[in-house]
Amino acid sequence: MSEDQSAYARAGVDIDAGRRLAARIKEMARSTARPEVLAGVGPFASLFHLAGYSDPVLVASADGVGTKLNIAAALGRYDSVGVDLVNHCINDIFTTGAEPLFFLDYLAGGDLTEEQKLAAVGGMAAACRDAGCALIGGETADMPDVYVPGAFDLAGFIVGVVERDRIIDGSTIQDGDILLGVPSSGLHTNGYSLVRSVFNVGRGGDPAAERAALYRTYPELGLTLGEALLVPHRCYYHDVKPVLRFVKGIAHITGGGLIDNVPRVLPEGLAARFDRASWRVPPLFTLIQRQGNVSDEEMFRVFNMGLGLVLVCAPSDVKVVRAALPEARVVGRVVPQTDQSRVIFS
Amino acid sequence: MSEDQSAYARAGVDIDAGRRLAARIKEMARSTARPEVLAGVGPFASLFHLAGYSDPVLVASADGVGTKLNIAAALGRYDSVGVDLVNHCINDIFTTGAEPLFFLDYLAGGDLTEEQKLAAVGGMAAACRDAGCALIGGETADMPDVYVPGAFDLAGFIVGVVERDRIIDGSTIQDGDILLGVPSSGLHTNGYSLVRSVFNVGRGGDPAAERAALYRTYPELGLTLGEALLVPHRCYYHDVKPVLRFVKGIAHITGGGLIDNVPRVLPEGLAARFDRASWRVPPLFTLIQRQGNVSDEEMFRVFNMGLGLVLVCAPSDVKVVRAALPEARVVGRVVPQTDQSRVIFS
Repeated sequence: MSEDQSAYARAGVDIDAGRRLAARIKEMARSTARPEVLAGVGPFASLFHLAGYSDPVLVASADGVGTKLNIAAALGRYDSVGVDLVNHCINDIFTTGAEPLFFLDYLAGGDLTEEQKLAAVGGMAAACRDAGCALIGGETADMPDVYVPGAFDLAGFIVGVVERDRIIDGSTIQDGDILLGVPSSGLHTNGYSLVRSVFNVGRGGDPAAERAALYRTYPELGLTLGEALLVPHRCYYHDVKPVLRFVKGIAHITGGGLIDNVPRVLPEGLAARFDRASWRVPPLFTLIQRQGNVSDEEMFRVFNMGLGLVLVCAPSDVKVVRAALPEARVVGRVVPQTDQSRVIFS
Repeated sequence: MSEDQSAYARAGVDIDAGRRLAARIKEMARSTARPEVLAGVGPFASLFHLAGYSDPVLVASADGVGTKLNIAAALGRYDSVGVDLVNHCINDIFTTGAEPLFFLDYLAGGDLTEEQKLAAVGGMAAACRDAGCALIGGETADMPDVYVPGAFDLAGFIVGVVERDRIIDGSTIQDGDILLGVPSSGLHTNGYSLVRSVFNVGRGGDPAAERAALYRTYPELGLTLGEALLVPHRCYYHDVKPVLRFVKGIAHITGGGLIDNVPRVLPEGLAARFDRASWRVPPLFTLIQRQGNVSDEEMFRVFNMGLGLVLVCAPSDVKVVRAALPEARVVGRVVPQTDQSRVIFS
């Protein structure tokens, strides 16, 4: 198309810019391709050849990044939230034992630049590549009347596969089984509404004041607050995959913390007893708690408190799991449920 | 949880309301279930058992509704955009001949009420049910600092399946093949930025003035402008499925119109010649063109102009296709490409 201002361009839609962006995104996506991705077909959709499974079950999940995006926008960082989104999605489907196959994204904002969009997609592509997951599609939308200036949203969709007889669903968990905690890298993608309220950042306030708060260095973090808050959500796929057959249940500690997420994999009548002294809550969480005067119970309901994944296994398998995954530590055990509580801290 | 105002609730996140909403959404989703959906497992993800295919290819797509959402928000209608999204996604993957299997959504806004969210999900569930597609997951997010008051966004992800040797990819299309147009129901989900600019609606202006414009009845439409603009995107799956084996290529006419979308299914060296007199452009499009003083070329690049799907088939198969799908009409033919144009109107 030529340089003249068509009615559509006047209305805020630049079809040519959209095409340029699509071409660059396509290149990034190509860097994540697996042999099963059928290229050159499906202009309206993406095709993935599913071969080599005897009784495949597809495992799917949709997620957003939530208001961690506001911190990213305040700091002008658009790549790490792409990593967050992919890793969150991978962990969610991996709780069933599924191998990630492909990922699609939805990126929308009112005034994102081409470079900002490419940074976000670049983060997603990098995380996909790391996990061997193909970024096969997505949609980018400009909606200035929907999004607050400077704000954007990012959603992801993942599909993985697991053999039906290898699905991990917690059903064999029993009294006496062991809870192994695997460290988180930071807040992952949960609790950011509370954090933003506590530190008064990423809330569309005075940009200079917000940036000053985010650039403040806390000695206990060894990082600025902004850096600590933007540490990407850790992907557990490669680390935990080798020990999958010794694992009876996997809880991804997201919104709701240990309190809500661990019971999701426990059979009825069982509870999880955590030994609070068995792991050190990282300083970022204690800083948030102190600064916001937040109760212990609420901290454990909102944040992962240092454990991003909880594995459940038989006592006899703890040794082999820890040999392959030394950072997993015993943080508690499965006990009979005696009252309404399904999670007990002692 | 109790009634007391936790720090998290103060920060704008109501975990209990979220749980209530999730329960009601789950019910709606259940109404769309297929036997392959493995219920009761996968608390962090959704499981779909893929059985009965000999060489399955998964077909996936991600889409948004775009700024049709602004019209919906201005009119307080949240259900029909859910239908739009699902049908758009189904048509996109159906261009390869794929059967839709499952759908996941992402719904976000700053101040959506529970009823508004349920209306949107209800629209998606209804459209999924109609197509036999399972709504198996999704994410709902409240982000008041990201979304303009009253605005929201909606994205969808779909997965379907097609046997590898039944993929429709346009590769067998040749000179002389016939273009069959299947009517659209309205604008579907494209061109709304231009429409909003032309009628000055759904742009966050004075609500009373916007509503007055949307409630105006145009005799040629037999509807108010708002009603005409919100007519849901038509799903072509059931209507076109019976004739799939006679079809060499399917173009879904979305952003870019006939001009951009039809060439996507044509082999190199071929072009599409449309006979403009062969179908009637619906009055909504001529109204937009007149009101906005939009050029013909731009109209055909932005809107579907009455044809939501274009099928390509051999001349000898036209009769059988039209017998099963009488509303499909011959609108042009495939010709050798003689210059840069891949779409010619005569």
